[in-house]
Parts: sequence; structure tokens; C-alpha cells
Amino acid sequence: MLKTPYLLFLGDAKDALAAKVAQGIRDWRPDHAVGQMRLDGCKADLGIPDMTVAEAMEKGARTMVVGVANRGGFIADEWIDVLVEALEAGMDLAAGLHNRLADVPRLAEAAARLGRELHDVRHPTETYPVGSGAPRSGKRLLPVGTDCSCGKMYTALALEKEMRGRGMKATFRATGQTGILITGAGVSIDAVVSDFIAGAVETLAPANDDDHWDLVEGQGSLFHPAYAGVTLGLIHGAQADALVLCHEPTRTHMRALPDYPVPDMGAVMDMALPHARLTNPDARFVGICINTRALDGAAAERLLKETEDRFGLPTVDPVRTGVGRIVDGL
Amino acid sequence: MLKTPYLLFLGDAKDALAAKVAQGIRDWRPDHAVGQMRLDGCKADLGIPDMTVAEAMEKGARTMVVGVANRGGFIADEWIDVLVEALEAGMDLAAGLHNRLADVPRLAEAAARLGRELHDVRHPTETYPVGSGAPRSGKRLLPVGTDCSCGKMYTALALEKEMRGRGMKATFRATGQTGILITGAGVSIDAVVSDFIAGAVETLAPANDDDHWDLVEGQGSLFHPAYAGVTLGLIHGAQADALVLCHEPTRTHMRALPDYPVPDMGAVMDMALPHARLTNPDARFVGICINTRALDGAAAERLLKETEDRFGLPTVDPVRTGVGRIVDGL
Repeated sequence: MLKTPYLLFLGDAKDALAAKVAQGIRDWRPDHAVGQMRLDGCKADLGIPDMTVAEAMEKGARTMVVGVANRGGFIADEWIDVLVEALEAGMDLAAGLHNRLADVPRLAEAAARLGRELHDVRHPTETYPVGSGAPRSGKRLLPVGTDCSCGKMYTALALEKEMRGRGMKATFRATGQTGILITGAGVSIDAVVSDFIAGAVETLAPANDDDHWDLVEGQGSLFHPAYAGVTLGLIHGAQADALVLCHEPTRTHMRALPDYPVPDMGAVMDMALPHARLTNPDARFVGICINTRALDGAAAERLLKETEDRFGLPTVDPVRTGVGRIVDGL
Repeated sequence: MLKTPYLLFLGDAKDALAAKVAQGIRDWRPDHAVGQMRLDGCKADLGIPDMTVAEAMEKGARTMVVGVANRGGFIADEWIDVLVEALEAGMDLAAGLHNRLADVPRLAEAAARLGRELHDVRHPTETYPVGSGAPRSGKRLLPVGTDCSCGKMYTALALEKEMRGRGMKATFRATGQTGILITGAGVSIDAVVSDFIAGAVETLAPANDDDHWDLVEGQGSLFHPAYAGVTLGLIHGAQADALVLCHEPTRTHMRALPDYPVPDMGAVMDMALPHARLTNPDARFVGICINTRALDGAAAERLLKETEDRFGLPTVDPVRTGVGRIVDGL
């Protein structure tokens, strides 16, 4: 668990997209974000107060979160002075980059000397049991994608917000570094040793009250030739009662693989459901989320309606229409 | 790669099964086994000469392989003196146990001082790329099981032997610790970080001559709620042209999971084939291997015939009938 609230470090982000981790925290956990810190040339802006380390400490910040990814996803040399300053002032550090904060000598030295924590959320340090497949109490929902990066995290967070807004018991369970930084906890499931994928998810989303919903963040796609193993372990470990299909309609091929077309939505549901029913015989699809950002209003409306007519499931865009109609059916 | 040949260390094996790694080397790579070493009370016997470390060195042994697993699968304190003796005499050590040779201080110290290698084959030290899904030359065959431990490694090794006997180009590719110790190379796929399962298999069984067959060792089962992610990554990474279903007919539930019944053979083929065709559209099942050891001759013959009639695929027991009829069809 990361200590909250955070000072969000945007570094020298080249554009808004480079700061998407920070933006995610700002959007989904606004109470966690006391301020932002930007270096010269930073092109991102979260619309919250710019602060020095000292000012953030005064506002109660406990952790500086590296909310920016430069090209390559590595900790940049130009960031180190500020990161050390945060440690000196009393904050922990958290990042989800490829290399570890703990492997940067100046950061490791300062953290050890000062008794601060360095959270490298992409690199799990816990060990997990193998999956048991044993039924557990509580309800769980899992988004399943036609591809990677098609809106699964956003869908789960939007469902959590909608459900909490209705007074339902609901908890987002992060399985990737962005989700972990947003909510302060979770397991970077693609970094777990492969024997323990399902077991890690069982640990992440444990038995709970009968009327409590875990919204488990999805990963990858059963149709992605590199990552499908992660997806299947996640499906088995989640023991989902409810599945939501996620799709980005303008993509023509699987992420980074021009020779692999994006599968049909129906094919993904047909493949995922028998797998889900291995560990939860009651699993069913309860809705479809389509990311229509690249479509105009009329085209988006038409696609949502056509998809809903074809599959007979509430079909929404979490941004354009909200996810209320999916929650209505739970 | 392990240096061959081996002195096979059987320790104080409680029975023949406890020495199954050593037995596998004896069965499949007899040229690699110059002798066995047994401690007092050892109940296993490979039927090859008992040797001291000095005698084995004289016969050319380069590596002492720990071919025994005690309860729990850990390196026993009583073995350490002999293991150090082997290092002192000039051999490397290899083991596939849960803890590492390299984590035993006396072994680590002796190996460092003497310049010997410690091979902990259950713990990959290489890093692998993410899978590319790109088609590659050569042919590959993958056994797919209804459960774990139902004969997939034996099937792949038997196919390799049969094919080599016919003068075909064939290479067994080990994906588990027993297979790695038997053949001296491979990847312990269930110990690879989950993002890299398929990529590790692509590396293990790379492009090859058009008429060369890789026999890739299978792992787990798509119906096992703990390990199916490993199985799916293996299916995608193998890009198998040919799949062989493996089944143990007397088992009533999935290994270690009394509440999960063993799936029907047809259901496993129906689930595996679409996954296999994602990365190799020509993938097809070419045969079925049933482990009939627990059946008498008449019952075994009846089951093989019934299964062959039902699925229209050559159905054999690799031990009882050999795998020749499957190779005939390749």
C-alpha cells in the first residue's frame, strides 16, 4: 500500500499522454492528489496546483508518484535531484517504470539512510500461492478485451465509481502498474512468475461480503499471441460472476502486431466464457464497453445500437454514455 | 547447456518414484549416464554401475545431477558433503529442486573457489523477449493434456526417439525441470515471468530446417485452474503444426483439486485447437496418447480402439504400443 496523499511528478512530459498515470490519479482518486510538480519544458498540466516539495509536505503529501513516462519508460537522470529532494523532505517514492527506483544508487542510498520506502509497482516483491480454484464469497466482475489497451482499466474504474455512487460495495482491484499507482495497491500481474498468475489474482480479490463487488482490472487478450497466458490466468483466478467485453472499434490489428487482426467481439465472448465457467459456472457477459473516442457522435450512437441489437447486452461507452446501464443489470 | 556425461546422484531415495529424474535420464539419454551414486538406505536402482566420485571422474563424468526428490523437493543437508566432493573433484552440479544449489552457502563457496557451474534448472536465469507471433520455418509438435502429469513429456520423448530411429530430424525441447535435466537444455516455462511465456517458447523452439521437427514438451492443462495460463502461452509460442492429446484414463479429478473433474478428451481438443490456430492456422490434432498403465491388457486395448473410433485419430499408449502410428501420419 502506498501512503497517501501524493505529490504528482510530471517531469518534462512531452505531451498530456506522457503523463497519463498522473492524469489517471487526478481523474479517479482526486483526493489523493495534493498537487503537481513540473520541470522546465513540461507540456502536461493536470489543472491542480503546482507545488514545490516543501509546499506539498505542508499540504500533507506522503508519497511522490512518478506520474510520467518518457520514451522507453525509464527513470531519467534529470529527475533524480528532485526525487532525492522528496526523500529528504520526508516522502516515499512510487513509480511503475521498467527500471527500478531501488536500482538507482542515489535513490537507494537516500531511502536507506532516511528510512523511506521505494515502491516499484511494476516489480512484485511478494510471493503468491498457486491457484486453488476454490469458490469464494463475494461477487467479482472482470473486463475482457478484444486487444490490449482497449479500455479495460477505464471500464473497471468507471464501474467502481458508478457502483459506489449508488451506495453499492465496490472495490477496483489493480492488475497493472497504472492501476496500482492510481489506487495505491494491487499486483502487476504480467510480472508474476507464470505458475502463480491465477493464485496472485485469488489473493488480490479475496473472499468478501456476499453483496460486495470486486472490479478486477483486465489485462491482454485471449487473442494476443504474446500475452494470452496472462489473460487466461486472470480469467481463472478472478472467478468472475460478470464479464464485460471491451473493444476499440477503429483498430485494425492487434497492438504492435500488424499481421494479427483484431478479433470479432462475438468470437472473444465465445472463447472467454467457457474458460470463465471453469472456475465460476455462473459466469456470464453482462455488457459491452466500446471506446468510441475516434468516432463522431452519430457513428458512435449507431455502433453502440448495432452492437446492442446483435448481442442483446447493454452496450455503452464509459466516457460518452457512462456505465449506468451495465450496473442496472447486476 | 549441461556438460555431459553425468554421474546420477540418487541420494537416499525412498522408492523408485523419488528417483524419476535419474530414471528419465537413464531411459532417454543412456549415453549421458556413466553411473549412479546411492547413499545408505537408497531404495532406487537404475541398473547401472554404482560409482564413487573418483570413479565417475575416471569414466569422464562432467556433471553430477541430483536425480532424486525427497518429500518437499528440497536439497537435503545429508547430500551436501557428497555434492561438495563432486565439485572438488572437477564436476559441475545440476538440480531441479525448489531451493537453489546456489543458495546453499557451502556449495556456492566451493563452486566460486573452483570455477564450477551450479545449474538450478527450475530457476531460469536468462531473460526472454515478448512473443512476436511471427511465423517461423520448421515443424513443431506439441502434446496437450487433459491434466497435469498425464504423459506429455513421455509422449514428446517417445516421438523424438521414434522419429530419430526413422532418420527424421527431430529435437525434444524441454519446458520443465525433469526434461531439462534429461536432455541438458531447455526452459522451465512455469518459472518464467508471465509476460514472456510465449516469447520464451519461441526462443526455445526457433526457426529450423523445413523438414525438422521440434517436439515441444507440454505443460499443465487448459482446464487446470492454477496452470492454464502457462499452457496457453505454450500453445501460442509453440506455433505447433501438430498437436497430440495426452490422457490418463483412471484419474477422476484434476491433480491436487478434488472438486475439478478431469475434462472429456473431446472438450480439450475443441478448446485447444482454436487457440493453436491463432499462431498457426494449419494446426491440427494428429493423434492421442493414453497412459494405460493402470489398466489390464484387454481393457487397454478396448479403450484405445474406442477412442480411435470416436475421434478418427491414431490412438496409442507410448509404452504399450509405441508411437509409430502417430509418426506414420506426419
